[in-house]
Amino acid sequence: MAVNLLPPNPAELVSVPGIKVGSAPAGIKKWTRDDVLLIELAPGSRAAGVFTQNAFAAAPVQVCRQHLQAGNSIRALVVNAGNANCGTGAQGLQAAQASCRAVAELMGCKAQEVLPFSTGVILEHLPVEKIVAALPVAQANLSDTPQAWANAAAAIMTTDTIAKARSTQLVVDGVTVSVTGIAKGVGMLEPNMATMLAYLATDANISAALLPQLVKEVADASFNRVTVDGDTSTNDSFVLITSAQAAHPEINVTTDPRYAALKAALTDVAADLAQRIARDGEGATKFLTIQVTGAASVEEAHQVGKGIANSPLVKTALFASDPNLGRVLMAVGNALPSLDTQKTNVWFGDVLVVENGGRAASYTEADGQRVLAPAEISMRVDLGRGTEHTTVWTCDFSYDYVKINAEYRT
Amino acid sequence: MAVNLLPPNPAELVSVPGIKVGSAPAGIKKWTRDDVLLIELAPGSRAAGVFTQNAFAAAPVQVCRQHLQAGNSIRALVVNAGNANCGTGAQGLQAAQASCRAVAELMGCKAQEVLPFSTGVILEHLPVEKIVAALPVAQANLSDTPQAWANAAAAIMTTDTIAKARSTQLVVDGVTVSVTGIAKGVGMLEPNMATMLAYLATDANISAALLPQLVKEVADASFNRVTVDGDTSTNDSFVLITSAQAAHPEINVTTDPRYAALKAALTDVAADLAQRIARDGEGATKFLTIQVTGAASVEEAHQVGKGIANSPLVKTALFASDPNLGRVLMAVGNALPSLDTQKTNVWFGDVLVVENGGRAASYTEADGQRVLAPAEISMRVDLGRGTEHTTVWTCDFSYDYVKINAEYRT
Repeated sequence: MAVNLLPPNPAELVSVPGIKVGSAPAGIKKWTRDDVLLIELAPGSRAAGVFTQNAFAAAPVQVCRQHLQAGNSIRALVVNAGNANCGTGAQGLQAAQASCRAVAELMGCKAQEVLPFSTGVILEHLPVEKIVAALPVAQANLSDTPQAWANAAAAIMTTDTIAKARSTQLVVDGVTVSVTGIAKGVGMLEPNMATMLAYLATDANISAALLPQLVKEVADASFNRVTVDGDTSTNDSFVLITSAQAAHPEINVTTDPRYAALKAALTDVAADLAQRIARDGEGATKFLTIQVTGAASVEEAHQVGKGIANSPLVKTALFASDPNLGRVLMAVGNALPSLDTQKTNVWFGDVLVVENGGRAASYTEADGQRVLAPAEISMRVDLGRGTEHTTVWTCDFSYDYVKINAEYRT
Repeated sequence: MAVNLLPPNPAELVSVPGIKVGSAPAGIKKWTRDDVLLIELAPGSRAAGVFTQNAFAAAPVQVCRQHLQAGNSIRALVVNAGNANCGTGAQGLQAAQASCRAVAELMGCKAQEVLPFSTGVILEHLPVEKIVAALPVAQANLSDTPQAWANAAAAIMTTDTIAKARSTQLVVDGVTVSVTGIAKGVGMLEPNMATMLAYLATDANISAALLPQLVKEVADASFNRVTVDGDTSTNDSFVLITSAQAAHPEINVTTDPRYAALKAALTDVAADLAQRIARDGEGATKFLTIQVTGAASVEEAHQVGKGIANSPLVKTALFASDPNLGRVLMAVGNALPSLDTQKTNVWFGDVLVVENGGRAASYTEADGQRVLAPAEISMRVDLGRGTEHTTVWTCDFSYDYVKINAEYRT
């Protein structure tokens, strides 16, 4: 059901010096695929992350926060699919810590240098012994090849239908720097800080002190702009890791033009992954890009974009390719009650559909149907009250969304 | 698809002295049913209303606000189904005013003494000439009989499958006071001030000065607690009208115990109508009552209740009768990020399912399935941080919700 989305092509991915990935089948659910991923970081690597704001933050999220806040060096990440280790209390924390200890023992580092991640069913205890048993195989598979990254992307999937990975490269001080990212997540998905699980790996030499800000800025311009169903998961985690092995002088201030260049490259990859998430949204048959312009602030632009993207009425109309202008106006008006509606203009694709808050004189139903027919659709709302803007990505609400969520125990 | 909901039984409705209703077929859509409703109020009647907070408030909502704010006496209400007269600019305002003038001419009152209401498709111009043409028939049908009220409830329906009306009586100073209410609305429905369209008529002798507060208090305890899809309509209107003909001394202070008694009776009727709306929610197969207790404030209780009620993941699990505890915790944690989850307890029906933020030790999947099997379900979330509480009503999200909204042009 994914919209214009292909599995990762190893020929389009790049290795990231100093970072290796390896996966293995732990049998956490009744499947035979790989479901545990190990990411090994060379000594001197740095990491920062952003996590769900949900009060029921899962045990691994709590452990990640501790390990990152303590200022530890980070040497490995361990991820499992099939069980979220959420709502599992003290036992859940112990399980997450046990997986860190097992990785540390294998890799010869400290447990606090390992970040754990889980995704899958909530409120069931993590079968940590299965993960521990699978780790030696994952370690044996550790590799920095593009194929290993494609395998890694597949190992973290839950209801995803297609694995999601993306690479880019940039040149910093004449040195080629690599960026490769993987992500998963197609439902319970309106990342508030980050998507369900996403990892960006690079070898850029950037100071550890700048990483927390960089990861937040990249998240705001990518994963925080995508929504499938407005439900923020308990396990959302987005982590940026760098081996810092690229042979250019360290980037250590945000005013450095190289910081902006690196951020742009990371954002390119992250935004592409975020869009892949909406393209593979549960039951998705349409991919919608919503631009909000003419806003007084980025925040209100975001509010309006998310308001449209999360409206069940807009999403079901989209599924039907129905140019239902009224529902879009309803969603805009709900998101921003103070709006002067007479200054509001809306375009579907290149067609002006709403002008000064009413149906555009030039608009015809045939034009509306024409632009909504494709699987890939864009919409622009101009609020007429400022110069700020944003872009939000989402998918439609189909029978299959209901089917998937009425049948799958998340 | 409605859950445990029958059409109004005239034998269970009561007349309201001084108030008559009459409907007629105007043919606003391709249907032959009555779609225009006229409500006539005897001289000396009083009215107050609460309306949508959506910035794209429809033309009739704007006219209602003007006519009520001006402190006019109100002599008639005119309602049409099939067209919302929303996003229709100056022409829409003129159409709403024209319908008021036509009613005023027929009834021998001023146009400012008429309140107009519309519900149906958005962004299409109101065929006001059809309404005007149907008014004489509606006037000829004016009657205060229970059957006329049942007909009135049917005339304002759009995607409703069942008309909604309810009566009660109370005794004030030895005098019997009557209350009859009608409502409509089953989608684009999360009233922020009131439901899509609802009218409560009484003959209680209460001062005009108290009505605005009374209508707000009643709305907060009824229509503001129901949600179908979280989408607040552009046309939400809830109006309380009284002929003030009951022969008891006027109620003119809120500290009067008779104010509380009247408010309780009105709230009974309004809450019943609100529940009928969720029972008839688009595609509904389940009716869910969510109690939130142990809150620090009513506002946060409401936030959590609405958070659960509007979560697509909770609603689809409900459709499947799936005791998906994790999704409920996810929704609670999103609604209240500051929650201490270890104090959270959740019951499905009488079964403790979550204890101290984790799966209750006594919980079995069989118990969860048993309590979620019926069409009528209750849930309680105790936040463990205070003594405030609220109740929210909603329905599930089924294939038919998608079907209805993919096919119907609201």
